[in-house]
Amino acid sequence: MMIERADALGLDASDPLARWRNEFVIPDTGLIYLDGNSLGRMPKRTITALHRVMDEWAGDLISSWWEHDWLNLTLAVGDDLAPLLGAAPGEVVVHESTTVGIFQLVNVALDLSTVRAELGRPQVVAIADGDFPTDRYVVEGIGRLRGVEVRRGLDDLDGVDVVVRSLVDYRTAELADLAGETRRARATGATTVWDLSHAAGLLALDLPAAGVELAVGCTYKFLNGGPGAPAFVFVSRNVQHRVTQPIWGWFAQTDQFAMERPFDPRPGIGRMLNGTPPVLGLTAAREGIRLSVEAGIDAIAAKARTLTGFGIDLADQFELENVTPRDALRRGGHVAIRRDDAVQLHESLTERGIIIDRRDPDILRFGLSPLTTRYVDVFDAFVTVAGLTRAA
Amino acid sequence: MMIERADALGLDASDPLARWRNEFVIPDTGLIYLDGNSLGRMPKRTITALHRVMDEWAGDLISSWWEHDWLNLTLAVGDDLAPLLGAAPGEVVVHESTTVGIFQLVNVALDLSTVRAELGRPQVVAIADGDFPTDRYVVEGIGRLRGVEVRRGLDDLDGVDVVVRSLVDYRTAELADLAGETRRARATGATTVWDLSHAAGLLALDLPAAGVELAVGCTYKFLNGGPGAPAFVFVSRNVQHRVTQPIWGWFAQTDQFAMERPFDPRPGIGRMLNGTPPVLGLTAAREGIRLSVEAGIDAIAAKARTLTGFGIDLADQFELENVTPRDALRRGGHVAIRRDDAVQLHESLTERGIIIDRRDPDILRFGLSPLTTRYVDVFDAFVTVAGLTRAA
Repeated sequence: MMIERADALGLDASDPLARWRNEFVIPDTGLIYLDGNSLGRMPKRTITALHRVMDEWAGDLISSWWEHDWLNLTLAVGDDLAPLLGAAPGEVVVHESTTVGIFQLVNVALDLSTVRAELGRPQVVAIADGDFPTDRYVVEGIGRLRGVEVRRGLDDLDGVDVVVRSLVDYRTAELADLAGETRRARATGATTVWDLSHAAGLLALDLPAAGVELAVGCTYKFLNGGPGAPAFVFVSRNVQHRVTQPIWGWFAQTDQFAMERPFDPRPGIGRMLNGTPPVLGLTAAREGIRLSVEAGIDAIAAKARTLTGFGIDLADQFELENVTPRDALRRGGHVAIRRDDAVQLHESLTERGIIIDRRDPDILRFGLSPLTTRYVDVFDAFVTVAGLTRAA
Repeated sequence: MMIERADALGLDASDPLARWRNEFVIPDTGLIYLDGNSLGRMPKRTITALHRVMDEWAGDLISSWWEHDWLNLTLAVGDDLAPLLGAAPGEVVVHESTTVGIFQLVNVALDLSTVRAELGRPQVVAIADGDFPTDRYVVEGIGRLRGVEVRRGLDDLDGVDVVVRSLVDYRTAELADLAGETRRARATGATTVWDLSHAAGLLALDLPAAGVELAVGCTYKFLNGGPGAPAFVFVSRNVQHRVTQPIWGWFAQTDQFAMERPFDPRPGIGRMLNGTPPVLGLTAAREGIRLSVEAGIDAIAAKARTLTGFGIDLADQFELENVTPRDALRRGGHVAIRRDDAVQLHESLTERGIIIDRRDPDILRFGLSPLTTRYVDVFDAFVTVAGLTRAA
């Protein structure tokens, strides 16, 4: 049975999350934005929050670090984010870039897995060849810095100290088995650093239940935290006391303003901090994070499944080559279509006001951010793709 | 001859930089703010700029990375800042926190000075015991991470690979001899990493003329870039081709969006980049930086000398123990007073609407940011201090 536009409108009418779209600034231009998995939309509350922080800066100046608790913003925003990960307060911090977060955690993981080093052998970090570039680059760089061996591929984890992997494949949206793969690595003595960039704010995660010890991710995708918003870093309570991260800064220091003492890292997640926190970026990130918490991550995850399912059905209907997993529990928040003419098609769609993403060489990503994407957006986008591909 | 309030008003009337104070949001509360060396005031243009970037985000979404050149913002803001350091375009990048910048540069410097490593001996990083905590902590952390020896004190540089030092002492405002000390370190084979946090936007620096190769600093003090604004990193053109920094991210990659290749760092300063740049923070930092460039760093540096000289004269007049160098060419932008009752005096001043800074155990810092501080502010602050100390 053909899917019609009326079906999409019907799904929107009964969508329990539909009202959350009003929480975002969405100019009335008719643009169809299916790239919230690269840069989420701007919440209206973010404008208010940035005005408030500008007033704090201009009016209360240096006192704001105490009066408005800027000093603890990295931890407070981390606590706001924690429920989206199934984490407890004190297990998450929001700061720096995702790249720096990965760097911190891979170094931490190497320290947690010292068996090979104790045997006098170089440690080994394993990462899949197709993982996101920054993850691979960071691992390569640490390999050079610390004399660590980098193994490409995750099939054989024998002798591996650290596994770095993305939960959601940035091209196909395929979801790894979080608990199972953490367990498989653990069985050979390896610690896994999970990159949740394409999962946070989209999937109902429970990191402790999955046995995850270390995870990192960005807040500017499904969390709508703003361009280049700071990253989050999760360190399980179970290992925090054994964690020494590599970049020692004054915000990680016990009794920060007693400046004459040697480095003495704070207890708990605070030891992951580095320098002075980016207050503007944190303020914007916080609003995006809070919206996702308020809307409810279970409802968001449910809509992600039905939205992507709807997209896959449309891809089938229009005879497009879907490479997204068909099992709704095995995919993230975008629909991936493989096309030899991906570059041209991407351009033609952009000209028609349909913004999707493209990844070399031939993948088109339709990012379906649950809080801001309507079923009718998905329908209209795929109908346009169908028209362009039939014409080609 | 006693300094009178009329003298201060006279100096303000003939101050060629007086009009720049109008470029900042300064609420009419009577607050005397002498802590711009911790957190600079908010430029009015920053509000406009943040509104513009919010509009870009909400309206142009992901396209903004190209349409509004967010992709190159770290480099563009670096180029804006370069003249304040005497640097050329392509020698400065603005990104991440100062702590991360120091971490990058100390690692870079260790790679540039490989003599000891080639001799099979551990490398040595030297830093003064009294340097700013984050600098000391970062060095300690790298010592642990890379098996590097940390030497405390800079008197004897024999066998030292890397020197880390602040140009301006954060307590006394004493200025190190930039060219002379760089040369002294170089003579023993050491590379110096200069921390310019208390110098950038205040002193007329010429890093190339001083032979500086590596420098870092923050943009939220005299550069008025906003709370936790991103740091700047300077790498001289002469050494860029030999530089490999430790945190490899996708923004440092040649042809960033060709994602299937191994890490291949960009030519030039771009190789210092890590992850996705913090657009909000960079936008605010840029406005502060541009104001300093427009006002003219020579005029700013000249006013810094006379403002601090005026403060020292007042300290003398009121028989306070000044610990700031009396030679105007040997000091930064604050006046430091030593007091046994520093804690109580700091509190009393705060209660009277005079905001200064305090550093353990007994230093009071009167930060005199040239673009926003009037001579009459300095006069009124010191008269209040005099009243409180006489009463005590």
